[in-house]
Amino acid sequence: MILVNGASSQFIDARDRGLAYGDGVFRTFPMQSGRPVAWSRQYKKLDTDCAAMQIACPGEAVLKQDLAAVASHEPDCVIKIIVTRGIAERGYAIPVAAIPTRIVLSTPAPDYPASYFEAGIRVHLCRLRLSSQPASTGIKHLNRLENVLARMEWNDPDIAEGLLCDADDYLIGGTMSNVFVAKDGKLTTPALDRCGIAGVTRERIMELSRDRGIAVRIGKITIDELLAADEIFLTNSVIGIWQIAAIDRRTWARGSLTTKIRSWLQNAQDH
Amino acid sequence: MILVNGASSQFIDARDRGLAYGDGVFRTFPMQSGRPVAWSRQYKKLDTDCAAMQIACPGEAVLKQDLAAVASHEPDCVIKIIVTRGIAERGYAIPVAAIPTRIVLSTPAPDYPASYFEAGIRVHLCRLRLSSQPASTGIKHLNRLENVLARMEWNDPDIAEGLLCDADDYLIGGTMSNVFVAKDGKLTTPALDRCGIAGVTRERIMELSRDRGIAVRIGKITIDELLAADEIFLTNSVIGIWQIAAIDRRTWARGSLTTKIRSWLQNAQDH
Repeated sequence: MILVNGASSQFIDARDRGLAYGDGVFRTFPMQSGRPVAWSRQYKKLDTDCAAMQIACPGEAVLKQDLAAVASHEPDCVIKIIVTRGIAERGYAIPVAAIPTRIVLSTPAPDYPASYFEAGIRVHLCRLRLSSQPASTGIKHLNRLENVLARMEWNDPDIAEGLLCDADDYLIGGTMSNVFVAKDGKLTTPALDRCGIAGVTRERIMELSRDRGIAVRIGKITIDELLAADEIFLTNSVIGIWQIAAIDRRTWARGSLTTKIRSWLQNAQDH
Repeated sequence: MILVNGASSQFIDARDRGLAYGDGVFRTFPMQSGRPVAWSRQYKKLDTDCAAMQIACPGEAVLKQDLAAVASHEPDCVIKIIVTRGIAERGYAIPVAAIPTRIVLSTPAPDYPASYFEAGIRVHLCRLRLSSQPASTGIKHLNRLENVLARMEWNDPDIAEGLLCDADDYLIGGTMSNVFVAKDGKLTTPALDRCGIAGVTRERIMELSRDRGIAVRIGKITIDELLAADEIFLTNSVIGIWQIAAIDRRTWARGSLTTKIRSWLQNAQDH
């Protein structure tokens, strides 16, 4: 199902600045039994990202109405919300009277192999290095060509995700996920002040872990530190938590900390 | 007028990867008396950019047909061609069966003040620094948020363009133009191997100048070198050549070299 500005439609205007320049933001999260998972956090991020780009964020009530319309058809699906700056003629200057375009798309809940959750996944270490743009870092905007180009590096269907570093070879995250590295019972997740996107699930896991006495450091992670980790796991709102079972020839057994944190996340009450 | 895959339509599919990720490329150039200016060069760049992104470029004959359809309605206009990877469900992985979307849009020829061509223009020195992404540098792709964010830095209608530097403070170009700096009768234009887009008009001006005995160096330009220049001019396919008359308090009189190169460009036979 697709809603464009609240109306059922498959189409957007070809002059939309979302297409022309990637001038917009988005969120992706599951709908489960008609309820958008961690909605308050998702909306807050959408609002923050819109503000950072000086786009008027659609009201929460309006979006909840859209989500209810989708839920009545597809109570279990993945939702993607896109908000663009709207339609305009040519030129980078922001039109004074721009009216944001609001798009809500649903896709079927993905059917990942059970092994991804049990044994874990194989990942590819990407050659592409993420660029640093302080003016838009952290914003989940529509300029996602780096992710596309990184994802083009492998075709092997047994590789579920790729890991990305910045230009200084520090680990940043997956092409579609955040990353946590566990060593001696403590977690580290990369600082995302120069590139990367700080996801809602990353935030939830940091809170859940700290609340239960697990130290979480935000900082730099080298590839050597990554490979020396006791456990590594990837997170996003759709996959939840996937442990990494293999990077090239280095392998990891199923880890108790990752399993524990997954159960905390599954039982979290912040839906 | 808008043609989507050759058919007159104002709309594209909301699932197009051009919108979702900026997964596509574009060209912008004038149509004059029904003829697309420097078409062979424009098509060659489009083809090269598509190839770099592994997008199947529409055939030249197909695009010429689209342009002829526009020309019959609007012989004098600005053309924008967008080619995206096409429609797909969620996910960064490139769909095996992706069919590129081809969009041809026309807008009225811009009505710039005569002073832009005569006295020259005022420009803003942007605070934003362009990021470096070797994997996509030079490609005129749809990830243009840096240009949008840079253009947001000024509202003064008397400022016609902004100049951008890379993270090391070397001049790269304007938000929508390439730049040439003249000193002692020689031209320098920034190297664009780390960021920026090498435009068709930049290429034409380098050729026209060298053919007439003007040395053109491609290299690094500092802000000090910029401000010490005898003449500076900006180029793109739509504006042609605009001389810079002022950057903050530093001003320049109309320059003879810029005037000469503009006349070469206007009389060039590579339409």
